[in-house]
Amino acid sequence: MTKISVDKVEGDIDYDAVRKEFGIENMEPYLHKIKKPSLMYRRGIVFGHRDFGQVNDAITKSRRFAVLTGINPSSPLHLGHLMFLNQAKFFQDHGADVFIPISNDETYVFRKTDDLEKAKQTALNDVIPSIIALGFDSKKTRIFISTEYKKVYELAVKISTKTTFSTVKAIFGFNNDTNPGQIFYSIVQSAHILIPQLEEFGGPKPVVVPIGVDQDPYMRLVRDIAERAGFMKPSSTYHKFLIGLQGGKMSSSKPESCIFLNDDPSVAEKKIKRAFSGGAGSLEEHRKSGGNPDIDVACQYLYYFFEEDDNKVKKIFDDYRSGKLTSGEVKSNLAEKVKAFLAEHQRKKEKAKKEVDKFLLK
Amino acid sequence: MTKISVDKVEGDIDYDAVRKEFGIENMEPYLHKIKKPSLMYRRGIVFGHRDFGQVNDAITKSRRFAVLTGINPSSPLHLGHLMFLNQAKFFQDHGADVFIPISNDETYVFRKTDDLEKAKQTALNDVIPSIIALGFDSKKTRIFISTEYKKVYELAVKISTKTTFSTVKAIFGFNNDTNPGQIFYSIVQSAHILIPQLEEFGGPKPVVVPIGVDQDPYMRLVRDIAERAGFMKPSSTYHKFLIGLQGGKMSSSKPESCIFLNDDPSVAEKKIKRAFSGGAGSLEEHRKSGGNPDIDVACQYLYYFFEEDDNKVKKIFDDYRSGKLTSGEVKSNLAEKVKAFLAEHQRKKEKAKKEVDKFLLK
Repeated sequence: MTKISVDKVEGDIDYDAVRKEFGIENMEPYLHKIKKPSLMYRRGIVFGHRDFGQVNDAITKSRRFAVLTGINPSSPLHLGHLMFLNQAKFFQDHGADVFIPISNDETYVFRKTDDLEKAKQTALNDVIPSIIALGFDSKKTRIFISTEYKKVYELAVKISTKTTFSTVKAIFGFNNDTNPGQIFYSIVQSAHILIPQLEEFGGPKPVVVPIGVDQDPYMRLVRDIAERAGFMKPSSTYHKFLIGLQGGKMSSSKPESCIFLNDDPSVAEKKIKRAFSGGAGSLEEHRKSGGNPDIDVACQYLYYFFEEDDNKVKKIFDDYRSGKLTSGEVKSNLAEKVKAFLAEHQRKKEKAKKEVDKFLLK
Repeated sequence: MTKISVDKVEGDIDYDAVRKEFGIENMEPYLHKIKKPSLMYRRGIVFGHRDFGQVNDAITKSRRFAVLTGINPSSPLHLGHLMFLNQAKFFQDHGADVFIPISNDETYVFRKTDDLEKAKQTALNDVIPSIIALGFDSKKTRIFISTEYKKVYELAVKISTKTTFSTVKAIFGFNNDTNPGQIFYSIVQSAHILIPQLEEFGGPKPVVVPIGVDQDPYMRLVRDIAERAGFMKPSSTYHKFLIGLQGGKMSSSKPESCIFLNDDPSVAEKKIKRAFSGGAGSLEEHRKSGGNPDIDVACQYLYYFFEEDDNKVKKIFDDYRSGKLTSGEVKSNLAEKVKAFLAEHQRKKEKAKKEVDKFLLK
């Protein structure tokens, strides 16, 4: 479906071409309109959108809106999830209600676990406390487990009649071996995205869903269904690919490619020290010809997450490119920041385990 | 799928051929084994089964077993539903736990209502009280609304990976216009049937599902899924077609073809007086050449439901066949019995409205 090769995430993706291919709009005009933009906005990591205008309006006019991001509890949270959750937090700081579906059904029907109950327990004991620890406001954040919050199946049934098998087949490419749970999950995911517009949450409203372009098919389906079912079409924003620790794709099934939010800080440090480097072969060579921060994992992670100061991150990139800053030095810088973040996060997460009920829809 | 013409329900169905076509067993050997058989068993209205042996064993050895019959709340209950519910009551009298799923999702995805909420309200305010009024034991009867009891979707997700789209397509004949809710409903119906075997209800056990042969595809699917999902294969019994008031198929979408359990007794009487008759053209002719009780609606309804005494029903059939008993007389006999039943049922139903919570799984 997507022609973006997942091996080409080392800074050489042409995001103009991606926008054109997927028919999504450039985020550029909004990047300057939003007050107090997060680093993902300031740095153009959010590069595209569908229908962001209605979200921007809601922010500007202080109207009710929501942000939604789904978590597949097939693994503990890692930096890939953090990109979505940081955006959700950003929109919450701008007035949004936050909705976070935990799709244990997706984990199961796509065979990422053979135990649905285990996926639910991972969600309750690990994933949800980890989300809460990121600082969401319990009064404005609703988390729900897909098989546990009965409105999900009810809404999925309601909207299932607004589309046909041939439509979902064309979007997702099912075949005869597809199990019926996978087919129906396309509808369940649409239901997740429409939950914030139910009457009990104030009815139709703008909802923004931060995603990667690989998830765009789900947006196309839910936008198609939404209007026929009496909802507003949800908006989406698209962020750039985050490089994995080894330079390729980040995948929770390859733990060595990810920093997990429950990694021991010393483990995370080791992962960083071993990470793919954009430096030249030897230190001498690096000092002479410089490195490439666009493909250097440590530079990228500072840019995406851990160096909040725009001037500092620019200086790091410049110095790395000139050879003044070595790979080892950037890695040490990142490692210190990540270790501090993880220690703090894990401390907060322990406290958050007692807060789960305040956030959970049942 | 089924080759039985629904227009051929006037007593001329060859049930030997039906058993052969569907590959189901003759009920005959069990009809004499069961203690205190209900009239549907004594009269061979239950004509076939799959795997009834394990149910008979459970009855004989006083082991735990269950009976399940689903109700589609697209209309109030009518005599067609009563056939299933009478069998459920019969098995409860022989020790079974009764499970009754109310499939408001089926009503909706197959477009028998355009309001899922309305189907739920019909269930709560009308269908469930009407079921309770039939005399089920609140300690051994569990009723659940498909979108309201969250175990349904959870179990459907779990078992959805045990089959494939091509399997359900081969059984139900989906096409490109089928909506994804209809596809998934095949799995949801299987989940309904497996609910009695969940751990919270004592784990795997024999479960018997009384059905008409038109519903056999669902049994074939759930039996195929059951073993792979760690459950016992459910058993089924098959009952003969019940003739509609006008002599053809009974359909809740044609109110004139059904007696509803909430019909005013006087309305029911009028429906009976207008019902299709197996008598000869004129009274004189009838006296001379007699009528055919096998196609006479009044005779049939006495046989299926309202004349408990086997000797009396035999005499009615004999006398009708000889011409001694007229169509008007049989209709009057039936009408009196139906009016008394409806008045009593409706009185009990009013009381039952306060009992719903005792029966409902949430």
